[in-house]
Amino acid sequence: MEERGCSREEVISFLSGVRAEDVHHDHILSSMCTIPHPIAIAVQEMFCATNLGDPGLFPGTMKIEDLLIKSLGDLMHLGSAGGYATSGGTESNLQAIRIAKKQRPDAKHPNIVVPASAHFSFDKTCDMLGLEMRVAPYGKDYMVDTEKMAELVDANTIAVAAVAGTTEYGMVDDVQTIAKIAKEHDCFCHVDAAFGGLVIPFLERPIPFDFAVAGVDSISLDPHKMGLSTIPCGCLLLREQEMLGCLNVDTPYLTVKKQCTLAGTRPGADVAGAYAVIRYLGREGFSSMVAGCMENTRRLVAGMEACGFSRVVDPVMNVAAFSGGGCVPEGWKVSHTRDGHLRFVLMPHVTRDVVERFLADVARG
Amino acid sequence: MEERGCSREEVISFLSGVRAEDVHHDHILSSMCTIPHPIAIAVQEMFCATNLGDPGLFPGTMKIEDLLIKSLGDLMHLGSAGGYATSGGTESNLQAIRIAKKQRPDAKHPNIVVPASAHFSFDKTCDMLGLEMRVAPYGKDYMVDTEKMAELVDANTIAVAAVAGTTEYGMVDDVQTIAKIAKEHDCFCHVDAAFGGLVIPFLERPIPFDFAVAGVDSISLDPHKMGLSTIPCGCLLLREQEMLGCLNVDTPYLTVKKQCTLAGTRPGADVAGAYAVIRYLGREGFSSMVAGCMENTRRLVAGMEACGFSRVVDPVMNVAAFSGGGCVPEGWKVSHTRDGHLRFVLMPHVTRDVVERFLADVARG
Repeated sequence: MEERGCSREEVISFLSGVRAEDVHHDHILSSMCTIPHPIAIAVQEMFCATNLGDPGLFPGTMKIEDLLIKSLGDLMHLGSAGGYATSGGTESNLQAIRIAKKQRPDAKHPNIVVPASAHFSFDKTCDMLGLEMRVAPYGKDYMVDTEKMAELVDANTIAVAAVAGTTEYGMVDDVQTIAKIAKEHDCFCHVDAAFGGLVIPFLERPIPFDFAVAGVDSISLDPHKMGLSTIPCGCLLLREQEMLGCLNVDTPYLTVKKQCTLAGTRPGADVAGAYAVIRYLGREGFSSMVAGCMENTRRLVAGMEACGFSRVVDPVMNVAAFSGGGCVPEGWKVSHTRDGHLRFVLMPHVTRDVVERFLADVARG
Repeated sequence: MEERGCSREEVISFLSGVRAEDVHHDHILSSMCTIPHPIAIAVQEMFCATNLGDPGLFPGTMKIEDLLIKSLGDLMHLGSAGGYATSGGTESNLQAIRIAKKQRPDAKHPNIVVPASAHFSFDKTCDMLGLEMRVAPYGKDYMVDTEKMAELVDANTIAVAAVAGTTEYGMVDDVQTIAKIAKEHDCFCHVDAAFGGLVIPFLERPIPFDFAVAGVDSISLDPHKMGLSTIPCGCLLLREQEMLGCLNVDTPYLTVKKQCTLAGTRPGADVAGAYAVIRYLGREGFSSMVAGCMENTRRLVAGMEACGFSRVVDPVMNVAAFSGGGCVPEGWKVSHTRDGHLRFVLMPHVTRDVVERFLADVARG
């Protein structure tokens, strides 16, 4: 750290220069995050000094967190759902599995059964909680094979997870069957809808994945992905608010006496931003945004196939994966799945113009 | 979630109204967070779309994270220190103890030894990692009794923690002795300086607590407390960057192949803001800010004692605790320690004016 400070102009100019080294969003075709909605950005300053970790000081901001959970619970077909705003999908998945573990103190060598598509946050979770992670293989179309999943469940299984909107292929597992398997074995059922939670409800033909499915205990759903909020804002949703009680620790010297969240200090600004977007767009706004992303996804698929690539699955969401074909033109950020397929995420910043420019580059070879 | 969205004006007006229900910072005397520095707020928009969880997309923002770690390592007397920006002290403490645990796969029933002052994030950590938490009692002046601490260490102890700037009394443990105990037992030494890390170096008589003390392996230090950044921005600092390697999980489909952080998606904006404050203030700016906080702390102590309260300890930092005396006047947010003492944190937003207004209220009874 330097002895002397710099002027405001020097600091801003330095940071602008470094920021310019980042890849421009016009070339990012691989991310599940996007440019936040202007209304999420507009409320940052108003809430920048708020800390949801000490709710007695910020009862107004806490009310907004409650409204955010209520709106999302409602979207997940359970207006009475509990939960809280997390730092993202990893914390949501971790906390859900912690709850599952607390409910099963009898399990001597606890394990969880997850789909092959499960996000790496489950690796972190199992590492921290000392759980065995049993991975059920893919069946048709990169959805988990539920029969093989059922075979992996045993008396030590504390939770079964499904993914609604897989990171690699954007597929939605058969949540109804998975929840039934969990129920039959009396274990917890968590749905990782970090990405899909704000896409699937707005598709022309929604797929069952949420609390409307009997047996689903918890859902992770990230506003900082398709909810256009600033980072960090994830949400853990629970069928019953009381399920959080088992995570409580005593919090002397705060305005509340118990805390169930992973973090202590928690940002109000990102939560307010997430709620602002939901309130501003409403279901209609989300539907129209998702429709646009899906149209661009279809256009990308058609364009790529015209250039000799083959779709790996029919996109269910705004994620597309391809095999074969040639190389990806320089300057574009795409990614690859573990199976070596080219992978694209058609976030709102990937506009029709961007898709056309990319396809033109691909066509030029 | 409503079918129809609202206008921008409706959303902003609703949120402003709710925000007004929060306690005004002029009355918050109990928080270790404060109003962010204007320069931290000024850079939010520039970085609002950046995600440090996918650093290949944001090499510029990643450079800022590296600069932040480098500046803080330098402040902690080890320019070569490794680390990364966390969501706050809880994640930093958790990750440090995870590293400690990985280093000791031999420990069959692992425990950690922490001071009585340890923040409740250690409870969460032990719960998640399946560790026994052994709590060493206070000795003189609410600092840990290091002799009793040493007695708690055994062959299953994987880490010993010290607190530099305790949450309740702002005290600094005898880190030199604690690090020696850790060394003698060949176990990890973590210093929780989430609050004190940006106060102690700027005191008139700094107290040894950082990497200058032989044996200190890791430090947690939160810019979102006395670093005046926006929330969330904590830092985990490590004597060697390589220590993070044991936390890596594979991250297919990202621009990097491994990830050691707890969260996947991570905000660049708060990190850029934290670095902006450090660059803008420099050591001189922090020294003058801390000097102001200490002056206000002394003024509060003198004023409270004039009203019949007694200081519990001589404040080492900008935290003060009192016993005896009367009630606290309505409208002010103070807190209580576990021992029932009145507790104040003299953050930068608690200006001399605020202190005088509070004392006048106390005097009026």
